[in-house]
Order: sequence, then structure tokens, then C-alpha cells
Amino acid sequence: MSTIAYLGPEKTNTHLAALKRFGQRSRYIHAPTVDDIFNLVERRRADYGVVPIENSLEGAVTHTLDRFIDFQDTPVEIHGEIEQPIRHCLIAHRGVGLTRIAAVYSHPQALAQCHRWLNEHLPRAERRETNSTADAVLDVLSDRTTKRRAAIGRRELALEHRLQAIPIPEERENKTRFLVIGLGEPRRGQRNKTSILFALKDKPGALHDALVPFKKNRINLTKIESRPSKRKAWEYLFFIDLEGHVSEPRVKRALRGLEACTARFSVLGSYPLTRS
Amino acid sequence: MSTIAYLGPEKTNTHLAALKRFGQRSRYIHAPTVDDIFNLVERRRADYGVVPIENSLEGAVTHTLDRFIDFQDTPVEIHGEIEQPIRHCLIAHRGVGLTRIAAVYSHPQALAQCHRWLNEHLPRAERRETNSTADAVLDVLSDRTTKRRAAIGRRELALEHRLQAIPIPEERENKTRFLVIGLGEPRRGQRNKTSILFALKDKPGALHDALVPFKKNRINLTKIESRPSKRKAWEYLFFIDLEGHVSEPRVKRALRGLEACTARFSVLGSYPLTRS
Repeated sequence: MSTIAYLGPEKTNTHLAALKRFGQRSRYIHAPTVDDIFNLVERRRADYGVVPIENSLEGAVTHTLDRFIDFQDTPVEIHGEIEQPIRHCLIAHRGVGLTRIAAVYSHPQALAQCHRWLNEHLPRAERRETNSTADAVLDVLSDRTTKRRAAIGRRELALEHRLQAIPIPEERENKTRFLVIGLGEPRRGQRNKTSILFALKDKPGALHDALVPFKKNRINLTKIESRPSKRKAWEYLFFIDLEGHVSEPRVKRALRGLEACTARFSVLGSYPLTRS
Repeated sequence: MSTIAYLGPEKTNTHLAALKRFGQRSRYIHAPTVDDIFNLVERRRADYGVVPIENSLEGAVTHTLDRFIDFQDTPVEIHGEIEQPIRHCLIAHRGVGLTRIAAVYSHPQALAQCHRWLNEHLPRAERRETNSTADAVLDVLSDRTTKRRAAIGRRELALEHRLQAIPIPEERENKTRFLVIGLGEPRRGQRNKTSILFALKDKPGALHDALVPFKKNRINLTKIESRPSKRKAWEYLFFIDLEGHVSEPRVKRALRGLEACTARFSVLGSYPLTRS
């Protein structure tokens, strides 16, 4: 039986993503920060970790990217990815109408994703940021007298606590992508994806030159993300996702070419490509 | 006399950046969101707006980038940039020692930037996120009885309210870059910078091809940032900063070359380069 560590608490989107991949038969533990999940895997207290990496509306989860930057020698590799559609609901006490709501609690990303709906339907309600959507529901539960608080979270959270859930319609495609991290060799799929991290040498045209080996070897890049190096202001590191496995000759050639243009280079993992 | 709108409240880093550029003789108004600042400039209620765009440790201010994505037809252009070093202090009631502090309030970016120091010196204190460093100080002030709250913010905020300020040493270069936005033609400097926004056509090698015109015309890119398109999951837009003015022939040639590879393209402004 595998032990899976996920960014908690329970019933958050990360928990549901972990369950989708590893099923009911695994043992689950949760921890409050991305760094904790990496630590649990590094110390073999968990076989795999599940952390968010990117949302289709709000962009990169910078804590996760920065964990790879700050711990250059981590033995942790990316073993896979999980895509999860996000469906937000407004969660409130039963029988309470929208006009009664004075404050809406949720994770900053959830508040941001629903801000148009909130502006339209609850223009006067205060917005309060919480560490997770599950914590936001606890804030609603703790207000049993006035019942003027609401949370944004998944329908499952409302059901668990016998609260009402009003679906918030999605205007745009809202999905979160999660990474599965682990030690050892990741399983190879039929189609694979490779994630790399690198720093460019400081010279004009450096980013162009770094991309030439991919073009030459006809390797498709699915994603490029820059992050501050944190060593020097306005110096950056790059994360690239590419289609292909690190053991394929054309990928090997491209990465050798890229490495020659870089001041720092690491492969974060080659793992099966997911399309949901 | 110019009217300057900045992301408020008063005495925040954005306010100090605005004062540094526009001096005491301008009229200042503040508003609570990046969107409000753009609106004030668009409706000519302010001549210029000042908004944060990037921090050297925490990266891009995505609200500001996304305002350019969401309002494609805004007449607002970038007129300049301001760099401001960030110096954090722990702000508490006078005579209160660190061991008494039970909760630390601040903006999420300030909490993130100080997390190592907090882990070392206040490992048991709770962290509470606020909308601004100025709001965090109000939370300290509102607790006059137990005096167990502290805030993270600039020294000026402590002086104003007669609180004590304990400097938090910076381990790494911590600066924030702000944009000055306005209507009309931006002033041209001796050395200039141009910011552009574009979407790639969906084909392999598209990003490489987009960078070729810069390489050919020997134009240095100082920054590339990707953001979700929000129209379709895992589709991106790119922000690039380059050295040079849009009226220079080599910049014109490069941008014409780039535009041919893009599905969406706009120049956000050409403005004087700042080095602090």
C-alpha cells in the first residue's frame, strides 16, 4: 500500500486530485505547505506527494516552482501530472439567501476566479482570504448565530457539513494541474513529457539560442515559465515542459544543446503525458 | 499640477515609489485595486497611475499583467518604471519583546519575503494575511490591550503610529519594480525600453520563431513572462520587455517580424529605461 502526501486539509482540490490518481486503497496524509509535502517524500515518510502546479485562469503556483529552485539537490522527481476541473460553489447555511451574506471566505485563487460573479451577486459582501477552501467552510460553520458568512469551495465540502451549495457558473475553462512527485525512476508512458529548469548565460540572444536545439530536433514545447533567481534582482530562471522522454535520442540531443547555453540546468522528470 | 493615482493605502511601497517619481508638488489619490488605478487613468480622473509589476524575490504581480490582457483596447500606455528597494521591519507596540508576539500580520508578499526570518525568530506566531502592509499596522493598533500582534511593513509606518520597528535583515536583493501608466505619448529617454504583449500561433517551434527577429536585429530582451490566456486551458500569452524605442528602425523591423508569427500583438509602451 502506497502512502500519498497531499497539500491539505481534506476535501480540497488537491485531495480530490490525489484520490483520482491513487484511489481509495492508498493511505493518505496531508500537510499544510508545499514544502512539507516535498519534505515528507524526501524523508521517505510518503511514497508520493501531490502538489498544485498551475491553474488555467490564475497561472503558476509559484511556491511549487520555487521549491525546485531553492532545493537544487533534491532527489525528488516529477512522476506524473493530474488535471482536475474546478467547480466552485457558494457555500452558506441552509435557508440563507444571498442578500443576507455579509462576508465571503475562501482561498485567494478561488476568490480571484469568482470575482466577476461576486461583483455581480454579492457586490457589498466583504472578501476574506483563508489558507484553503476547507478552512473557509470552517469559518462559515463557526458563525452559527448570525449565519451571514459564506465560503467558496467544492460541493463536497458543503455536503459533508450539511450546508447549502449554490453553483457558481464558470465563464471560462477552469482547471488545475497537479504534479505527482516521488523518489526513484518515474514510470514511462506511451507518450511522455519532460520538465526542465535552467538559467541562461548573461548574453544577448541567450533565450533564442536556448530554444534553437528544440526547433532543430522538432521538439514541441508545451510551456515556458520564468521565475526570479532570487540571487540578483531581475535575473531569471526558466521552467520548460516539452513533449518527449529524456531517453529518446532527439530529446537527448536537444538537452545536450540546451545545456551548453546554460549556467544551471536540471531535468525535473520525464513522465506520462495526461490529457483529460 | 499632475494628479497621481496609486495602489493605496498611504505609506505603502507603491505610495513611496510614486512620491519618488512625482515629488511633493503633485496631487495624490489612492485606490484599493490595480483595476481601480487603470480606471482612474482611463477616465482622466488621474494623469498618471502607479502600480507594482514585479518583485525581485516573489516575481510578477499578476493582477497588473492580467489587466493588460483583459482590457485589450485600453488607451493606457506604460510611461515609465520606478525601482524601489524594499526594507521590511517587524512593527509592534513599544516595549513588547519578540517572545510576546502571538500573530504576525502583513501582505502575503511581505510574509513570503520574510518567512525564513519569521521561522527562526517567531516560529510559533500565527501568520495572518492582510490587503496591504498599512492594513497590517491597523491590526496591530487595534490590539491595545494584549499587545501580542505584530506587522511587517516599512519603518515609516511604525514612526507614524509611534510603534517600535525592528529591522528584518534582507538575505537577498529585494526590490519592487512599479509601472507608471498614462494616456498620450510617453516621454522618450536617452535609453529606452519597450514592453509588448503577444499570443503565438499554435504550431511547433512558435516561440523560437517569435524570438528570431530580435536575435537578427540584435535586440536584447530583458524579460519574458507567460500568463494563461484564460480563453482555453494551457494556452498562454507572453509579455516581453526589450531594450530600445519603438521608433528605432531596428526595433520596428523586429516587431514587424514578430507580429507575423502572432495571433495577437500589442505594444504596451516605449519609455525611459531606469537603473537605480
